[in-house]
Amino acid sequence: MSRQDADSEAPAGRILTVTLNPALDVTYHVPTLTPGATHRVARVDERAGGKGVNVARLLHTLGVPVVATGLAGGACGTRIRSLLADEGVPERFVPIVAESRRTVVVAEPNSATGLWEPGPTVTPDEWDAFRTRFTELVRGVAAVVLSGSLPGGVPVDAYRTLIEAARCAGARTVLDSSGEALRHGLAARPDLAKPNAEELAGLVGDAPPRPAAALDAVRALDARTVVASFGPDGLLAVTGEGAWHAYVPQPVAGNPTGAGDACVAALTRGLLRQRPWPERLTEAVALSAAAVRAPVAGSVDLSDYRQLRRAVIVKEM
Amino acid sequence: MSRQDADSEAPAGRILTVTLNPALDVTYHVPTLTPGATHRVARVDERAGGKGVNVARLLHTLGVPVVATGLAGGACGTRIRSLLADEGVPERFVPIVAESRRTVVVAEPNSATGLWEPGPTVTPDEWDAFRTRFTELVRGVAAVVLSGSLPGGVPVDAYRTLIEAARCAGARTVLDSSGEALRHGLAARPDLAKPNAEELAGLVGDAPPRPAAALDAVRALDARTVVASFGPDGLLAVTGEGAWHAYVPQPVAGNPTGAGDACVAALTRGLLRQRPWPERLTEAVALSAAAVRAPVAGSVDLSDYRQLRRAVIVKEM
Repeated sequence: MSRQDADSEAPAGRILTVTLNPALDVTYHVPTLTPGATHRVARVDERAGGKGVNVARLLHTLGVPVVATGLAGGACGTRIRSLLADEGVPERFVPIVAESRRTVVVAEPNSATGLWEPGPTVTPDEWDAFRTRFTELVRGVAAVVLSGSLPGGVPVDAYRTLIEAARCAGARTVLDSSGEALRHGLAARPDLAKPNAEELAGLVGDAPPRPAAALDAVRALDARTVVASFGPDGLLAVTGEGAWHAYVPQPVAGNPTGAGDACVAALTRGLLRQRPWPERLTEAVALSAAAVRAPVAGSVDLSDYRQLRRAVIVKEM
Repeated sequence: MSRQDADSEAPAGRILTVTLNPALDVTYHVPTLTPGATHRVARVDERAGGKGVNVARLLHTLGVPVVATGLAGGACGTRIRSLLADEGVPERFVPIVAESRRTVVVAEPNSATGLWEPGPTVTPDEWDAFRTRFTELVRGVAAVVLSGSLPGGVPVDAYRTLIEAARCAGARTVLDSSGEALRHGLAARPDLAKPNAEELAGLVGDAPPRPAAALDAVRALDARTVVASFGPDGLLAVTGEGAWHAYVPQPVAGNPTGAGDACVAALTRGLLRQRPWPERLTEAVALSAAAVRAPVAGSVDLSDYRQLRRAVIVKEM
């Protein structure tokens, strides 16, 4: 299916995704992983990864004009950029000297073992160069999506700095991070924040793990709009127009990695289109569920997405 | 200790090592590898690898002038080359489009799990380009070392072709490979071949796994000189001057990966110096044992090497 089929309506403007700590996602397919043994890997899959990169790929799949930026270093960084180019996703990553991280997944038929590299350390000059480049890239952009963890050497309030710069340039801002990076970023009051249940609990202390009970916790956050994700229990949105719980009643089988990025992609598009919230949440839940069903994180089958859209239930809270 | 200390005598000429299927050796240090779990890797070690690359590194450590060549592709190939440059090992790898392979070792304190990528496929044009480059590089070289497996797309008689070209240019030739690549390479009668017990059995059928009984099997091979390695049981050499068994009587604890490459490095230096065979074999056994003791494959501690040299026993057969 061509990308033009994805949706009948063009979005209002270009989106810039920021991935300060992208990854080269490497998957090794083996029949069985036996600790202590040597395995000849029959098949290797490589993919540009990191939450913001996944958001960029999904927006590109949906036919939304997008540019991916961030910090990419060494041979891994070069590979990440060339894999994005192979997929047709425009990128303007800023080079750093240290090697970008790899995530290695050893995939057995019914199990997966992850090995997460620690990631690079960014120098003060490299961070300065990124801020300058960001100021250029954000001009004329409708929305900026800031996703994922910060690499070493980047100030903990990096997202706050970038959100403020984006706002100066007239762009809407979407934040999807965790821990201190998220807490500092919220201080700049992004237009939309999308914590998951664990991140919410990290911010608010004893946030309940189910959407129906988490309304007060979500209301306590500092963003203009918060959409909290609760895995198979769906989304809880607290907006200027009201609060909603959106979900798919039947469980969706598959791999939840990347579902949050699909949610962010759909919500960012929705932010620019300014459709009613129930419609935006329907799209976000359906795109997340389609990502769960897809065999590879950060990709969706658009016919799955359209079918799932009809199954979403949205309840006002 | 400086490299100049390594030995009192300069070798007679430069050595070219050929690694057609080099690897980016990646080691992940984890406390425990748990299948099905996600591991944050505390420390990542990266190293240029492949048998010929290890030989080049060891010769460089010994103070012998060496150039490493072979085929290196994609971001992994770039990384292999830059890691060699960091170590000061001169290299003239020929680029290919496909990604060079990685070997990932997940190292627990008392165990190691290996994941070997399948490696690239080389195009006919790339192989032609390598042959041309090899003809240039081999000029003025005293010896060529051909090590390891062949990547996809390279003809199975590649080592035969390269040995013949090296001989035309007046260089001595050393072959350390396995299976069909070794069998075809032997047809060009290299100056020295170094099969291990398993490779010997692959060539000769029922070669005994211990040196004392393997003399007839080794004599049956086609190289001018054969030095077969039997792990802790040492080396069996069949040369124009006689046959010897060389070994260290006390077992050496450590990691045997890279011991064969150390043996090849020492034997190649010995070939150029033309010292008596018992002396050459002493050096080869001692450098192999020092490599076993070293924590990282393909490296040695030269003081270990010198100490081990005094422990080697050489018996005429």
